[in-house]
Amino acid sequence: MSPAARGEPALTEDQLLAAIRKVLSGQGPGVLAGVGDDAALVETGSGDGVLTTDLLVEGVHFDRGTTGPRDLGYKAIVVNVSDLAAMAASPRYALVSIALPPGVGPSWVMELYGGMRTACEEYALSLVGGDLSRGGEVVISVSAMGEVARGRAVLRSGATPGQRIVVTGTLGASAGGLLLSRAPSPAAAEAVGSDWGRDLLAAHVRPVARVGEAQTLAQVGATAMMDVSDGLALDLTRLCAESAVGARIELDRVPVAPGLGELARVVRCDPLELALSGGEDYELLAVLDPLVVEKARAKLHERFGVPLTDIGDITDGSKLVAVDASGAERPLEPKGWDHFAAAR
Amino acid sequence: MSPAARGEPALTEDQLLAAIRKVLSGQGPGVLAGVGDDAALVETGSGDGVLTTDLLVEGVHFDRGTTGPRDLGYKAIVVNVSDLAAMAASPRYALVSIALPPGVGPSWVMELYGGMRTACEEYALSLVGGDLSRGGEVVISVSAMGEVARGRAVLRSGATPGQRIVVTGTLGASAGGLLLSRAPSPAAAEAVGSDWGRDLLAAHVRPVARVGEAQTLAQVGATAMMDVSDGLALDLTRLCAESAVGARIELDRVPVAPGLGELARVVRCDPLELALSGGEDYELLAVLDPLVVEKARAKLHERFGVPLTDIGDITDGSKLVAVDASGAERPLEPKGWDHFAAAR
Repeated sequence: MSPAARGEPALTEDQLLAAIRKVLSGQGPGVLAGVGDDAALVETGSGDGVLTTDLLVEGVHFDRGTTGPRDLGYKAIVVNVSDLAAMAASPRYALVSIALPPGVGPSWVMELYGGMRTACEEYALSLVGGDLSRGGEVVISVSAMGEVARGRAVLRSGATPGQRIVVTGTLGASAGGLLLSRAPSPAAAEAVGSDWGRDLLAAHVRPVARVGEAQTLAQVGATAMMDVSDGLALDLTRLCAESAVGARIELDRVPVAPGLGELARVVRCDPLELALSGGEDYELLAVLDPLVVEKARAKLHERFGVPLTDIGDITDGSKLVAVDASGAERPLEPKGWDHFAAAR
Repeated sequence: MSPAARGEPALTEDQLLAAIRKVLSGQGPGVLAGVGDDAALVETGSGDGVLTTDLLVEGVHFDRGTTGPRDLGYKAIVVNVSDLAAMAASPRYALVSIALPPGVGPSWVMELYGGMRTACEEYALSLVGGDLSRGGEVVISVSAMGEVARGRAVLRSGATPGQRIVVTGTLGASAGGLLLSRAPSPAAAEAVGSDWGRDLLAAHVRPVARVGEAQTLAQVGATAMMDVSDGLALDLTRLCAESAVGARIELDRVPVAPGLGELARVVRCDPLELALSGGEDYELLAVLDPLVVEKARAKLHERFGVPLTDIGDITDGSKLVAVDASGAERPLEPKGWDHFAAAR
């Protein structure tokens, strides 16, 4: 909480709404009527609609003592954009509802909306409405709508045996950043200022949604896709369940984020485990026919400078298997971020 | 909470999601892919999109000790449908996110979704996705999307001086029901079982969204419209602010809900005050040219058996005035349900 939040005058709902309106970017493209009416009125195009929502709860998803409101607002938007991207959709509109405990003042709320506005601008998303309430803890609910050309969305259910499993970017950086930020040792405190430490922290605090990358993968022929929000192992398990297939992952191909090797020297952790189960990377997990993997890799590199890694293949059945460098197989455990398990 | 909620086995997020999926009505009209993917994929028609969201927080909007999960789920949907209706839109899709404290078991959650499903079926709304999280208190965030023929939405901003202000149904019943349910006296307990008592309680627990009525008012020529969720006085103030006009309400025309007279004999309250400032009636407040009021009233009666009452007129300036039967004027105070004031 910013110091200014204490002792600020209490605002009525209408006063706070008026203040929020000033922070918002106004009527974006396609917005016919935004904040201020019963509902927002927006143009929809000729494509299919894509709808998603995410709930962020203080004490479960973030800690107000360690996460600033700007970063929090930014991330709250990006995680929803990532869900739209995972369907190969373009972000269009967002709604944001917030519950606020009495101790959270208007300036904290304005910074939160400032962070959301920044993310909305980066991803061409119009923030068109929302709701406010008192509550016992901060709860942020973001819903977002995107659009995709008719029939062009990529679901989780389109994987078939023989296809390759690919992933964008690298994995584990966000979980590594979180570990680093929480580690109490002097060595960890020093590492926070290093290049690799800063990169890991940034990956956690300011994630990137792969909007253009997803559309490129869809164009090249991805038949199943999702974002890696809860960790590769758990999310791949979900994709395979929706597609009624199994998978075989080659562990030495998993793109472990740079910096995790350094992190392991400062904080006790297993870089591969962070890459498999850390979560919050918001990279894309996609399934492609073997013949188009190279084309997809070239296009992602050329257009976005983002690597694409082939990490294994889709198999018959329903088993998920991890193969290590020696060829030894073990079940790929669907471990990852489970909000229910985490809070117990 | 139902007794069964205690001692129930804890479920993982995926297990709870699987259970929720079974309660949902499946793929509704226009749903190409619902719960289970990164986002829902839906058809959008040729009209404009309407987006709304509402947040319900335990201890602010409801009390788990006195509100059953079915009623709560039902109402959570209806309040959003009412916002769509207020734009003259047809409900299409909904997203629901829920935060749950550890003590709330799966059976409570299933009943909540059961109530939502009932409301979704009544209003032809498809529940297409959502999110789940642990939290310190129950928080329910519903977002809904509707559709309206291009250019046919009715906003709050279209009122002009000389027009008549009309309201559907009657006002104050929901607030009266809440008062009655909370009154500790034996007379109040007895009244709960009376016809008028039951009607008041039902108005609070199972509100009705005026979807068809709103579309009829739009067809007849309503130029401004909103739903009365926070009380006539506060909501009319908002409508006038958006339209940059004033209003003059004739107090003896305000349609006070039947039963409030009886209630005032049992619980200390002012029926007119409940009608003006009680909130949660979800009736429509609309603005019509004087020449079409009679036509609108006839159509609403004929199609829905719902009364439409002319309660005053839109004026120049920005003042809201209430006139009593003797002709005495006083300012119409924008009192009503303010979530921030209520929780302080």
